[in-house]
Amino acid sequence: MSDIVTAGILVIGDEILSGRTKDKNIGFIAEYLTNIGIDLTEVRVVSDDEAAIIEALDALRSRYTYVFTTGGIGPTHDDITADSVAKAFGVGIDHHPDVVARFAQRFTPAEMNEARMRMARIPDGADLIQSATILAPGFMIENVVVMAGVPSIMQAMMDIVAPKLKSGVRMLSDSVKANAREGDIGGPLREIAKAHPDTMIGSYPFLGEDNKPNTSLVVRSRDPEKLAAAIAAIKAMLAGLNVAK
Amino acid sequence: MSDIVTAGILVIGDEILSGRTKDKNIGFIAEYLTNIGIDLTEVRVVSDDEAAIIEALDALRSRYTYVFTTGGIGPTHDDITADSVAKAFGVGIDHHPDVVARFAQRFTPAEMNEARMRMARIPDGADLIQSATILAPGFMIENVVVMAGVPSIMQAMMDIVAPKLKSGVRMLSDSVKANAREGDIGGPLREIAKAHPDTMIGSYPFLGEDNKPNTSLVVRSRDPEKLAAAIAAIKAMLAGLNVAK
Repeated sequence: MSDIVTAGILVIGDEILSGRTKDKNIGFIAEYLTNIGIDLTEVRVVSDDEAAIIEALDALRSRYTYVFTTGGIGPTHDDITADSVAKAFGVGIDHHPDVVARFAQRFTPAEMNEARMRMARIPDGADLIQSATILAPGFMIENVVVMAGVPSIMQAMMDIVAPKLKSGVRMLSDSVKANAREGDIGGPLREIAKAHPDTMIGSYPFLGEDNKPNTSLVVRSRDPEKLAAAIAAIKAMLAGLNVAK
Repeated sequence: MSDIVTAGILVIGDEILSGRTKDKNIGFIAEYLTNIGIDLTEVRVVSDDEAAIIEALDALRSRYTYVFTTGGIGPTHDDITADSVAKAFGVGIDHHPDVVARFAQRFTPAEMNEARMRMARIPDGADLIQSATILAPGFMIENVVVMAGVPSIMQAMMDIVAPKLKSGVRMLSDSVKANAREGDIGGPLREIAKAHPDTMIGSYPFLGEDNKPNTSLVVRSRDPEKLAAAIAAIKAMLAGLNVAK
């Protein structure tokens, strides 16, 4: 059985914190990681501030198997992610020859200005994350994956980097619609959760199509038998409730 | 001139980290705080784990004027926010008499079970955040505002608590559509940013309706004159670019 593989996400950008841009990357990466057997454990969002980026990055990269960052790798003065990552790792940063060569094919000499050349600045020792459709590359340095903030580009980068990551035993999940209000099943559900310690049981209220309060019970486990046992216990509990009604 | 008022958000919930639920609260609260003159500085998302909640809460509440939490105040075993907050503050927690009284009006004796009574557990000294339409109340203890995870309920709670918060000088913002690619204006924009230190200038690329790459330049400042000066400098720079074309 493989070790458990964990991850943190670091979203970088004033525009998320001001509410101007609504983040769509956290949810996408969360679901993506779950699907490939990596446990997302923590997310942080910080501003375009070097000290804030480095502090959060250092906290996350020391705790989790991987850290995924989004945002701040464009051509303008507020794009400081690559430099901040280099500083966090204590390595140099310079124009990466492969990126410069690609830019030279893509841009006229006049377009190869200082701003665009910023997008070629890659920390020493990092591996590029690029493809024909990605202009400014992302990169991976040690356990940190640095990606664009634009969702479509970030998603393309995830597809490129995912096969290179080690993944753990995939978290399995199953769910049961309770046909009961959350407050009516909280007690027995707590007992089931206690009796099934290798599972995680979540309870999520929702308003059913019949406009009645209902509850979705989600069990997660890496062990299919333990998952099935907890689901069976929940179904038995719910059946008992309905008899009692 | 008032002090600058800052805030952090702490989103609590396994369902966000697994990707099962896509968070909608960060963007809402971010925009809300900007509108009332509070600077959102950091966001963290953690799982339904007491140690993780307490660590993040302590980090955020010691740094920022306010902390807003969402999630984990329902009736089931995975709703541990209120207990974690009490522990972080080192205060007791018990059934709040006002909440119990409201529940007694609302629920039958059979419905007043242990699970539902969990929603009446409020840390000692906290002020309730409630209204006729809110079942499980939120609360505010010192500088921490504890709210529901369900967006509609969280939003109702923000409306209740907002008038009680001190707010700073509102951050003003203005924006200019550059009609230029981000990479073409990054250099002069950096000089403008340097020359206008009391403003924050953000550069956000987008694909225009004409399908051409375009850039939105956003200037933020608490001082309307400094904001206007930076906007004027950006417009002059862009006019110069267009003459040069």
